[in-house]
Parts: sequence; structure tokens; C-alpha cells
Amino acid sequence: MTTETPDLEAELQAVAARCAARWNDRDPAGFQSARLRGLTAGSMTDWGLAGSGVKSKRPPISMAGGIPDAASQPKQGLLRAMERALDVPDDGPLVYGGPLGYEPLRAEIGKYFARDHAEIPGADHFILTNGAAGAIDMAATLLLDRGDVVIAEMPTFAGSLRTFRGHGVEVAGVHLDDEGMRLDQLEARIAQLRADGRAPKLIYTIPTYHNPTGVTMSLQRRADLVELAAREGIHILEDTAYNELFFTPERPPTLSAVAGGRGVLTAGTFSKVIATGLRIGWLQAEPALIELLLPGRFDMGNSPLLHRMLHEYMVSGEFAPHVERMRGVYAAKLAALAATLRDAGEPYFEFTQPEGGFFLWLRLRDGLRGRDVQRAGFEEGAIFPPGVGFYPGGDPDGDPEAVRLAYSWTSAADIAAGGERVLAACARVAGG
Amino acid sequence: MTTETPDLEAELQAVAARCAARWNDRDPAGFQSARLRGLTAGSMTDWGLAGSGVKSKRPPISMAGGIPDAASQPKQGLLRAMERALDVPDDGPLVYGGPLGYEPLRAEIGKYFARDHAEIPGADHFILTNGAAGAIDMAATLLLDRGDVVIAEMPTFAGSLRTFRGHGVEVAGVHLDDEGMRLDQLEARIAQLRADGRAPKLIYTIPTYHNPTGVTMSLQRRADLVELAAREGIHILEDTAYNELFFTPERPPTLSAVAGGRGVLTAGTFSKVIATGLRIGWLQAEPALIELLLPGRFDMGNSPLLHRMLHEYMVSGEFAPHVERMRGVYAAKLAALAATLRDAGEPYFEFTQPEGGFFLWLRLRDGLRGRDVQRAGFEEGAIFPPGVGFYPGGDPDGDPEAVRLAYSWTSAADIAAGGERVLAACARVAGG
Repeated sequence: MTTETPDLEAELQAVAARCAARWNDRDPAGFQSARLRGLTAGSMTDWGLAGSGVKSKRPPISMAGGIPDAASQPKQGLLRAMERALDVPDDGPLVYGGPLGYEPLRAEIGKYFARDHAEIPGADHFILTNGAAGAIDMAATLLLDRGDVVIAEMPTFAGSLRTFRGHGVEVAGVHLDDEGMRLDQLEARIAQLRADGRAPKLIYTIPTYHNPTGVTMSLQRRADLVELAAREGIHILEDTAYNELFFTPERPPTLSAVAGGRGVLTAGTFSKVIATGLRIGWLQAEPALIELLLPGRFDMGNSPLLHRMLHEYMVSGEFAPHVERMRGVYAAKLAALAATLRDAGEPYFEFTQPEGGFFLWLRLRDGLRGRDVQRAGFEEGAIFPPGVGFYPGGDPDGDPEAVRLAYSWTSAADIAAGGERVLAACARVAGG
Repeated sequence: MTTETPDLEAELQAVAARCAARWNDRDPAGFQSARLRGLTAGSMTDWGLAGSGVKSKRPPISMAGGIPDAASQPKQGLLRAMERALDVPDDGPLVYGGPLGYEPLRAEIGKYFARDHAEIPGADHFILTNGAAGAIDMAATLLLDRGDVVIAEMPTFAGSLRTFRGHGVEVAGVHLDDEGMRLDQLEARIAQLRADGRAPKLIYTIPTYHNPTGVTMSLQRRADLVELAAREGIHILEDTAYNELFFTPERPPTLSAVAGGRGVLTAGTFSKVIATGLRIGWLQAEPALIELLLPGRFDMGNSPLLHRMLHEYMVSGEFAPHVERMRGVYAAKLAALAATLRDAGEPYFEFTQPEGGFFLWLRLRDGLRGRDVQRAGFEEGAIFPPGVGFYPGGDPDGDPEAVRLAYSWTSAADIAAGGERVLAACARVAGG
């Protein structure tokens, strides 16, 4: 501390002591805003710690988080892109990038990720965010007030449930079937909410390679959903985090493309196609909506340095082949995991093999509880979350108990062993 | 769009057309959340555009935004730091960094920026954010609910006013004098608010190299302020964005250091000491408060890649000399600007030369209005904001009219010319 005389130093110490005494009498929790009270911290990646306190018999294999393959990170490509991004005579890469983010990157995102639109959306359809999670937070800020209702699939991404709750919003769930969100349940929910005098303001869905179930919404269901939402005047927020990781010749069109760009907001991200540590995602919507959310952006925007690095990486021609390569990596891991689990798992669970994405969802047979399998899995040396955390109500709500296996990050060498440990965990729980 | 048959394609086009027709009947603004209605977009850097529509007689010199010197950006140092950050065998730099951010960077921030504490705060006192603006947003999320009151200096940083309003919070202003926030007015404000049944929850201040006035709070005032706040049980949020840019041998201690770390939250940033485009800042508080704000973090954290790059840059030994060098750069620019303005400006304004930071605040003589001088300045070829935008009520509230000149970004070669243009603008307005 800057001091001029010993007296001053003593006086300042006395000030600090008096302040401490005053604040010691007060509980910090008493100062927490009402809106945060009752909310919990944590993200899906925290699930990996859910076994703490339980002893594992070997170094655990993690199948916990939706994280890209560790061995395939394009570190050198990103570094070269950063060199090019910084190699400009002006200070552009290191000055505020504005609330929307670097325009050429937004334009590239339109061309690559929204290429299924009849007319490719321009840069003015996008705002760049801290990942898809940041985009979902922005969409909530734009459209929702406390007490509003969002309708979502149950189960769904737990991080989004936290975000909606953080905005003081209730999440009403509808189930999925093999074609995606059940529209009969959706219509009934909307009618019921309206009868109760509550207006649902948003339908949140993960139509493609759904987290956690892996289900992909059929084309017919997509068309029916966007029409239903347009009829009801309710916006759709589609989470497309896993969209580009398809194991079939093509991925289905986004809801935004099916709807012709109206009434649908799309959250997307570079997290799953490159790395979660980039923390760059976007919200896509019609320009009038993008403009309406600018007053809700208080953080002076994201890093234009990262935006320019990503733009350089995209236009260098390295990005598309990287994604293509990753599709093969994940498809192979899924195939290995499914082969390990299919026949041997028959007594314990069933699953539908997804057509893309990061997750395999095991629907447990009667009597097996997800939390028990999770705990036994940790003892066997495999980390994965139980299904219940993905439900708005925190219970399976009529669905069978389940566990979610993320095969994306687990090394190819560990996949089969991970699957064997899941089987051993199930056998142990089933055996009582 | 993925299509299988011409019929399907036609059907999908019909779906999109029907959706568009439905949404065309609805005004997007009708869907904006109540909390965003009436708020405006924009940041301080937008001030540079405030002259649009007015014709400038020469290419303008910008003295608009609080942006570091363009010529001194450590691009090569950052690039080398990025190389080192990526040169690790694991995937750490590119995986989610957690809600708090990269721990070694938080520890370094404690050592460098919070070095004036009797005991250096550890990593658990910090959460990393999108710049100081992101930290202020987090502090508001932690402590404030709609209808609460924040007390702030008037004038103050306009971006923070926007943030508080975005949280539905009223900002009550107290004036500054040459020693900083006036505590007589502060006490009266608190008493008056309590008499009206309204509890002020937070005191927001920029004690060091204040934006926009350049005032630095005296040590005695610091001690009195933290004691007053402790007595009243009101937290202080200090914005230290400019703290390290001192032109004197040392900077004054932070309020947090004076208060012994209790009752004070400190927003800090790398924006002004390196570059605004990094978008990395932090909130410092006692660990119990940091923990209480985690439930309000919905964006899965910031980029650990940038955190690691900054950490490498700090520990390389390049950071401290860079900041030292920048102090000299800004001190020289301020001296040149002040020399240009001091005598010649006498008929039009007065100013107190700040001891650090980016801004010179010109208090205009009777009859000169800031908006007129701004407009005339643009015509002369100088861009700078009027003072009124920095007041919670949007008017000088008893203070003289003013304009703010940012000398940080303007090239050394342009500084004197910029000052001359400001003088010409004043002369033109004064001349009627």
C-alpha cells in the first residue's frame, strides 16, 4: 500500500480493521440478489465431478462432457490463423469489435452454417456471443421477462435449464419420440398454459443430434413445428451446437431454413466443431430481432482478436476439411461404443444409435436407476451423468431412467474399455 | 436445403411462405422483453459516430474513445505468448476453462493489480469476465434486483449507466470535487433514499483517473468512503480500468486495499493496459461473494485460450515494462494536449490536469454548450463527446457544460492539431 508516514500506515490499518469488523457481522449471502437465490452454479462439465467422494478402482475414463476429441485439436492451424489475424498494419484486431462482432466472420458463418437457407443470410442476421450458451442467454434477455414460460424438450441440455431459470422463467417440458419433440404434447401444453392465463413465449429445442438423447427431428416434424409456432405466434429457439457433426451424407435443414428465416432464432457455436475453449458462438435471427437485442448487451462485445483468428481459419480452407475429418472420428468412436454395448447391454438398457453428435443415451431397464449406475460406473472407473439432471423437474417424468455417455472426448483407445466399464456397472447394480 | 424430391421441395417452400405470411403480420418490437424496452444500444466507442450527418472540413482526428495507443500494441509479444500457450501436450488451452477462468492468470492478476493489499489476494478472489464492462454486469447480477438503487458519481462512465439501467436499477448521482466523490452528498443521498423507503444497494465509483473527469480520489476520501459504506452496510463497486496508467511515481491504493478487502468489489481489465479487443477483465471480491455470483454465470465462461495467452504474456516479463512504457506515452500526449489548450483555451473552458488515465475534461465557460462544441468540433475535424451523456439524468445537473477529450488513441503527431481544432470549435461557438 502507498504510504507516506508510519502514522498514516497505522491509521489505514485501523480503517481496514474497522471495516472488517463491520462486515464480519454480516452474512454475504444476505446480499445476494433475489434472482440468484435458489439457483445453483455449475455446468455440464461439472458432471464429471459428480462421483467425487466415491472411490474408483482404476484411473477413470471420462464420458462426461460434450467436448471435442483431444488429439485432433487444430492447434497449429489456429496459431497460423492468429499470425495472419495480427499481421495487419492497423490496430483493428485489438480494438473493441462492436456489439455484433467481426463482420467478415459473421458473413462466413452465414455461408457455412446457414447454407441450407434458400437465400444465405448475411452478416446482419448474426450476433457473436460467448458460445451457444451465451447465445441462449441473449435470446432469453431479448424475449423473456420473469414469470414467462419456455417450452422445452424433456430431457434437454441442463445448461439451458439453468439459464432459463436464471432469467426467472419457468420451463415446461414435452417429451420426444424418435422423430423429435412431440407436437401433440406441445399443442396440449400451449393450450393448457393459455387456459391457466400464462403465455408461453418461446419453444426451445435441439432438433439435430439432440443433447442428451441423440434424437434427430424428422423433416416432416420440422415443417409441422415451424408452422405450429407461426400459427401460435411463439418464437422457436433452436440449439444447433452439434449440427455439423453428421455421420450421414448430409444433415437435415435447420428449423430456421425450413421456416424461411422467420420466427426462429438459431444458437450455434464453434465449440463442438473446433474446441469449447474458443467460447465463440452466435445467435442467428432476422435482422430486426438482432437489432432489438443490442440494448441488452452490456459487455462491450467479444474479442475481435478471436473473431479474426476464426475468420482466418475458416477462409484458409482448413476449417471445412477439419470438420469433415472430425465427423469420421466421432462416427468411428460411436460405432466402437455401440458395438461394445449392443448385445452385452441387452439385459440392462436399450438405445437408438444417433446419426451424429456426441452422445449415446442409454434407456435403463426397469429397476435400474441412473444415479446408481453412475455411482457404480465411477467405482468401475467410468464417469458419466445420470439422465435425471436433464429434466426440468429433475426426475424422468414418465421416461425410463437413463444415463448419458459422451463418446466425443474419450480417446479411441479407451472407448471399448469405457463401454465395458458401463456394462460392469450395470451388472453390479442389477445384481443388487 | 436437403431435399429428396421436387414435390418435397415445393412443399417446403410452401411451409416457408406460410410462416413468413404469419410473421409478417406481427411487429418484432412487440416481442422484445419488457426489461429491454426503452433501453438504447451503443457504447462509449459509438460516441465517435455522434457527428454523423455533419460535414467535416478535413479528415477528422478522433479523441472519442478510451482506447490504447494504436502504434504501441504488443502484437508480436501476444503472438509469442499464444505460441507458448498452445505448446502443451494436452488439450487444456482449448477446453472449457470453468466459470472463474484460468487459475494461474487469476493469481497473476492478484499479484500485479491487487499488489497494494496488505495480503495479496489469491486466485479465489477473482472471476474473469468480458472486460470491466462484463465485471460490472456480473456485480449487478450478484447484488441487484429490479427497483434497487445504485449511487454513482455524476458524471460517470456512460456504459455503466446503461448496464445498471439494463438491470432495472435506478442510478442516483452525487457530484465530485477535486478529491473525488463528495461524501456529504453521498450521506445525504443515502438518508434521503432511506427516508423514501428505498434502500441503496451499491455505490459505484471510479476513484482513480475518473472517467470522464480525470479526478483522483484522495487517500483521506478513500478511507472515509470505505468506512461510511461499511457503517451503512452498502457494498462499493470500484471501477479500476485506468488504475495502472499513472503519471506520478505511484498510483493510490484501491478502495479494496484501503478497506482490507471487505465490502468492496473491484472491476478491472486488460483493455486499457494492453488492448480493448482482448475483452478480458475481472471482478475481485472476497471469495464468499465470488462464490455467490457463480449461479448467475450462464455463458460457460470466457476463453481459456486468451487467458493462457495473457498469463504467458504476464509471466514472460514483457507485461510490466509494456505498461511502464505506456505510462510515458500517455503522459507525453496529455502534456502536449494540455500545453496546446491551457492558455489559448482560457476564454472557453478550464480543466484540471489529471495524474493518469486517458481523459481530459473541459469544463466550458458560461454560455458554451457541450453539444454545440461537439458539433463545431466535428465540422473542424475533431471527434469527441459532450459531457451530458455521462450524467444519469442526461443533463449536467448543476455542473458546467463540458466535453471529454480522450488523448490515448490519438497519435502523438495529431495531438496538437486535435487540440487546435477543439479551440477553433470553441471560438466558433463562442463567436455565435
